[in-house]
Amino acid sequence: MSKLQQPIYNRLALIGAGLIGGSIARAARAQGAARSIVVTARSPATRKRVAELGFADQVVESNAAAIDGADLVIVCVPVGACGDVAREIGPHLMKGATVSDVGSVKGAVLRDMAPHLPPSVHFVPAHPVAGTENSGPDSGFAELFVNRWCILTPPENADKAAIERLAAFWSALGANVETMPADHHDLVLAVTSHLPHLIAYTIVGTADELGEVTRSEVLKFSAGGFRDFTRIAASDPTMWRDVFLANKDAVLEMLGRFSEDLSGLTRAMRSGDGDALFEHFTRTRAIRRGIVEIGQDSPVPDFGRTHGGLPAEPLPRPYAADNE
Amino acid sequence: MSKLQQPIYNRLALIGAGLIGGSIARAARAQGAARSIVVTARSPATRKRVAELGFADQVVESNAAAIDGADLVIVCVPVGACGDVAREIGPHLMKGATVSDVGSVKGAVLRDMAPHLPPSVHFVPAHPVAGTENSGPDSGFAELFVNRWCILTPPENADKAAIERLAAFWSALGANVETMPADHHDLVLAVTSHLPHLIAYTIVGTADELGEVTRSEVLKFSAGGFRDFTRIAASDPTMWRDVFLANKDAVLEMLGRFSEDLSGLTRAMRSGDGDALFEHFTRTRAIRRGIVEIGQDSPVPDFGRTHGGLPAEPLPRPYAADNE
Repeated sequence: MSKLQQPIYNRLALIGAGLIGGSIARAARAQGAARSIVVTARSPATRKRVAELGFADQVVESNAAAIDGADLVIVCVPVGACGDVAREIGPHLMKGATVSDVGSVKGAVLRDMAPHLPPSVHFVPAHPVAGTENSGPDSGFAELFVNRWCILTPPENADKAAIERLAAFWSALGANVETMPADHHDLVLAVTSHLPHLIAYTIVGTADELGEVTRSEVLKFSAGGFRDFTRIAASDPTMWRDVFLANKDAVLEMLGRFSEDLSGLTRAMRSGDGDALFEHFTRTRAIRRGIVEIGQDSPVPDFGRTHGGLPAEPLPRPYAADNE
Repeated sequence: MSKLQQPIYNRLALIGAGLIGGSIARAARAQGAARSIVVTARSPATRKRVAELGFADQVVESNAAAIDGADLVIVCVPVGACGDVAREIGPHLMKGATVSDVGSVKGAVLRDMAPHLPPSVHFVPAHPVAGTENSGPDSGFAELFVNRWCILTPPENADKAAIERLAAFWSALGANVETMPADHHDLVLAVTSHLPHLIAYTIVGTADELGEVTRSEVLKFSAGGFRDFTRIAASDPTMWRDVFLANKDAVLEMLGRFSEDLSGLTRAMRSGDGDALFEHFTRTRAIRRGIVEIGQDSPVPDFGRTHGGLPAEPLPRPYAADNE
């Protein structure tokens, strides 16, 4: 990978250094997308760890110190904490700076942050649609955003040049950038992300509470399908609590449709309507192919999970075939 | 990998050569677990392809020809077709042969196959809990069963030596073998496999039917969680139609509990009970850790999906940081 000829921003301030903040810092440094990178985090332990990992030029103790002189400020905290951060930094932002975030819900972020930001800064909310089930400063990596979408949801009156510059920043980090209204974003993500997480959290909980089937059995036989759900049900609890509270309406709407569809399949199963099941399953297979075709998932079976080697030890004699 | 010193069976007949049948043939050959391997399949195209792929010693046109002289017959067809195959092969099985299957439902297989099998053969149903979203003879591979569980559900009066021999066969293919009653198997798999598939099939269908969110948007932003569901919703439609019809009662039972739990989380979301959500999400995260600890999934983030490299092209000048 080669660095940019010129950085896109002079001083990037990251408020929060978890999976996303830590990945932005690593990617921005690798690409030379900002001349300097300053990071802060609420917890002293996180700040200490960020300093040890060395992916920022500076680690500071307060949000005020972080934003001092920053022309790009990205708030990388759970959605529910964005409003408070905006209130705190609003009066101290550099004139002309761009303020952004990485929240998975955009309507609530716009509503909570915008009132605290002065008209002299550009507010361009963003959502990089990328992540893993891990969290914390150790979990980030520079390639997290490569070939993933980053959705910008600027308010209607936002400055065009500021939007384009932020888009260039995310492109430099490897993302494909798209712009859409915040409320449409929240509806799209309700179905592609929030509802899947809610369902995964539910089924993993259900499996853990059974009387007749032990937890040990659930874990052992998870390769039958269950384990695919557990990955997203291992995502950061604070982040996801905030997502469901902040995007409640859209998630409830999608949940209603899901429940209707589930009733339909249940009815087909109960009445022994094999044709209806077959037709439905054939259709969903095609959707998977679409995702693989546009490069949003691995075409390798099992997502490219590695399979171990065959056992090397020969078995004992008694099992030899009879008629030799 | 090293071959067994002696084969466990003399002649292995596989009826059906899809993902599972084709993987058994490849693994058994790699391990020398059977002296010869004969394969048949209903469709001429599949038989032709198996012959081209060369993973069997013989490809024959009929079930009767396949089982001729076989001391292990494994029926590798969808659950709904097992009874018919048993009726056809029953009268022609070699005395002392072991007959098994690979179905994901065991009560129905026992019920459908047992009446057609003579008392002179050993019937030991089996379920290798392994698979990928792909199907057909090309999709199999020798390592599919490595470190996966294979569950045997022998009837109460089954011959101990025959069970142990089949267990040794599956161990040679890399599987961990466990034995349990068929009805318990069906309950365990309802929650670890069948319910997850039903849910995945449902949500992928729901996402595809929305008016406000286009299919293109669903595919593009699937990295937010949705794509994890699409893998299992791409599984073989015939196989899964049969599974849901054959294990209806256990799946409906688990579905009832899932729906109650989903209502609970929905209520927490609706009433803004963040603590309840947080507590639930923290618990599910621990379950994921358990699956990774016992080696049933990859500890690498994103199941070890590969991430691409950062973009190499420098960006155009206009985005350079202002004060150089």
